[in-house]
Amino acid sequence: MEVYLDNSATTKCFDDVAAFMTQLMCRDYGNPSSLHMKGVQAENYLRYAKETIAKILKVNEKEILFTSGGTEADNIALTGTAMANHRAGKHLITTRIEHPAVLQTMQHLEEQGFKVTYLPVDGNGRIRLEDLQKAMTKDTILVSVMHTNNEIGSLQPIAEAGGLIKKMNPHTLFHVDAVQGFGKFRIYPKKMNIDLLSASSHKIHGPKGVGFLYAGEKVKIKPIIYGGGQQNNLRSGTENVPGIAGMARAAEMLYADLDRDVEKLYYLKQKFIEGAGRLEYVKINGLTGRESAPHVVSVSVGGIRSEVLLHALEDKNIYVSAGSACAARKPQPSATLKAIGVEKGLLESTIRFSFSVFTTEEEIDYTLQALYDIVPMLRKYTRH
Amino acid sequence: MEVYLDNSATTKCFDDVAAFMTQLMCRDYGNPSSLHMKGVQAENYLRYAKETIAKILKVNEKEILFTSGGTEADNIALTGTAMANHRAGKHLITTRIEHPAVLQTMQHLEEQGFKVTYLPVDGNGRIRLEDLQKAMTKDTILVSVMHTNNEIGSLQPIAEAGGLIKKMNPHTLFHVDAVQGFGKFRIYPKKMNIDLLSASSHKIHGPKGVGFLYAGEKVKIKPIIYGGGQQNNLRSGTENVPGIAGMARAAEMLYADLDRDVEKLYYLKQKFIEGAGRLEYVKINGLTGRESAPHVVSVSVGGIRSEVLLHALEDKNIYVSAGSACAARKPQPSATLKAIGVEKGLLESTIRFSFSVFTTEEEIDYTLQALYDIVPMLRKYTRH
Repeated sequence: MEVYLDNSATTKCFDDVAAFMTQLMCRDYGNPSSLHMKGVQAENYLRYAKETIAKILKVNEKEILFTSGGTEADNIALTGTAMANHRAGKHLITTRIEHPAVLQTMQHLEEQGFKVTYLPVDGNGRIRLEDLQKAMTKDTILVSVMHTNNEIGSLQPIAEAGGLIKKMNPHTLFHVDAVQGFGKFRIYPKKMNIDLLSASSHKIHGPKGVGFLYAGEKVKIKPIIYGGGQQNNLRSGTENVPGIAGMARAAEMLYADLDRDVEKLYYLKQKFIEGAGRLEYVKINGLTGRESAPHVVSVSVGGIRSEVLLHALEDKNIYVSAGSACAARKPQPSATLKAIGVEKGLLESTIRFSFSVFTTEEEIDYTLQALYDIVPMLRKYTRH
Repeated sequence: MEVYLDNSATTKCFDDVAAFMTQLMCRDYGNPSSLHMKGVQAENYLRYAKETIAKILKVNEKEILFTSGGTEADNIALTGTAMANHRAGKHLITTRIEHPAVLQTMQHLEEQGFKVTYLPVDGNGRIRLEDLQKAMTKDTILVSVMHTNNEIGSLQPIAEAGGLIKKMNPHTLFHVDAVQGFGKFRIYPKKMNIDLLSASSHKIHGPKGVGFLYAGEKVKIKPIIYGGGQQNNLRSGTENVPGIAGMARAAEMLYADLDRDVEKLYYLKQKFIEGAGRLEYVKINGLTGRESAPHVVSVSVGGIRSEVLLHALEDKNIYVSAGSACAARKPQPSATLKAIGVEKGLLESTIRFSFSVFTTEEEIDYTLQALYDIVPMLRKYTRH
């Protein structure tokens, strides 16, 4: 049995999506900027994608901008709005547990003269609204808070934060990195006072190399990539029609059965947590149940280095992650785990299991049995 | 018969490439940053892509950076180096007939305080080396010259320009936009003194949404997209493994039979030019034969607006372009055609026919016959 439990890193593309993309690569392959029928056809696929995603978010289709992924969407959301709005102020707010696509971009903006406040989180990885309230100044042009954390699956109080921000300063923009939340939750930017929302295709069984940014129509953005003026001059470059349409198809498929799939994910997660809890010296990081993401479980396994456990599981064809894949090849301990106060001894003994619609109960049972076999054995031989 | 002659806008993806990508999307779908076998496998596909492209260019594989397309590659090449090298000088040189991905980025850099010299071209769309020599100053940090023009297929004296630039100032970087030249020519950056070279996948029968930038290992570049630190911190974001590997496979296939295919393209082009020349009031823009690109023919058809001819050809299932697709939806006349001195009356009567390895002699015959049928008829009914 092969058990892929690294779905927060990337997911298997739906077969239907790949087949659809093959059609768009090999048959309906026009450039949307071309005036002839093949160009119009390509443009229609882009329209299908915009309509599909706009409908899921309950926003206007012209508010959807296609990007090369979640990272580029985050970059446009932060740098693009900071550069377009810096005359209104140079203060930005984010959290300490954002994805590097936000944290590193914020650091870049600090070098450009912006001031950034990094909100702390509680032991379960949630910001406190009081901290956000205190951080807001009249110079705050943008607040960026992730929807679902990629390492521990914590959920932020997005709607409450949105309401608070707009109450304090209606001009402050609110960006939400929903790369881990889109495809698992119903997120409605207009209701939640979200001005900008990033998502990625390859986390929702779509192709890699595609993402989107929702940007409310009044949001001023300066492009970060210049050229032929595609997408209303906001993102030049021939549109990746097969990738974009493939992402939309994946989203459409996921949202068609969302409630049922999410219900199942929470069931599997609960089963896994209960099973893992039977091991000694094991700690689940963050909240569980409906107060957490349905697909992410972060487990600290006392006394075993994450890489050792990861490779032991790999020997049984179980694929998991040590921390997040996005920074997995870097040896430094996770900023998120530190921010929620994971004790030093466990920082490098933490494994992330992340599920998807393809995950079965049988796989969970198999993985638990593997842990029961491996963990005591590893502790016996690696204890120092 | 369907005749697609808009291959400079975009090309049909090779079936083998699409099948390969399906495998990488649905079976070998790991994230290259993951430490387990599926991540290592994904990394191996990236390595295959780097090796393949590096071998074609005779460069080092670590000098290949993957991007979301030619436009992003151009943006990194210009903005990335300008920002990293501005202390050495703030002068840039390019030509008047570059693709918007270069021209618009240059304009953006002018807003950032850089000074840009736009070299004129002769009646055949070629820069003069004397002009380049005169434009170079001790503050010139970058020269950007396209390899093959996308509208008229003119070729620039790249190796000569590279030699001249390095002779005058070894620190001045030389960027070549080879989006239309890669896949048609053997281009060797090290021999030609090219420091940076951009290419796009969807112009060479690979997928859309992918491209690469060759950047010599000593070239200093500041990223334009920040995040997880992928690709040596130069381009963050989960790598588009299927797209990247698909692009490499397409390049591999094209370069395996390059000489034979290019020979055939020149033959078809010559045949088409001779055939089109039998029409009255028709002018071929730019040079022909080996002094031009094998796949692009720009034809001014006196007395007929390009859009009218384009749609008349479309009625016969022949797909061509008015100007370049990249700016096709914008009504302003082409800067390239103006720069080579196309007379005013013909500026908006110009059609681009662009061929590919899929183009057949039968299609050329069919297209010529269509022109013989359509052009006199349109002139009769639209003459003013």
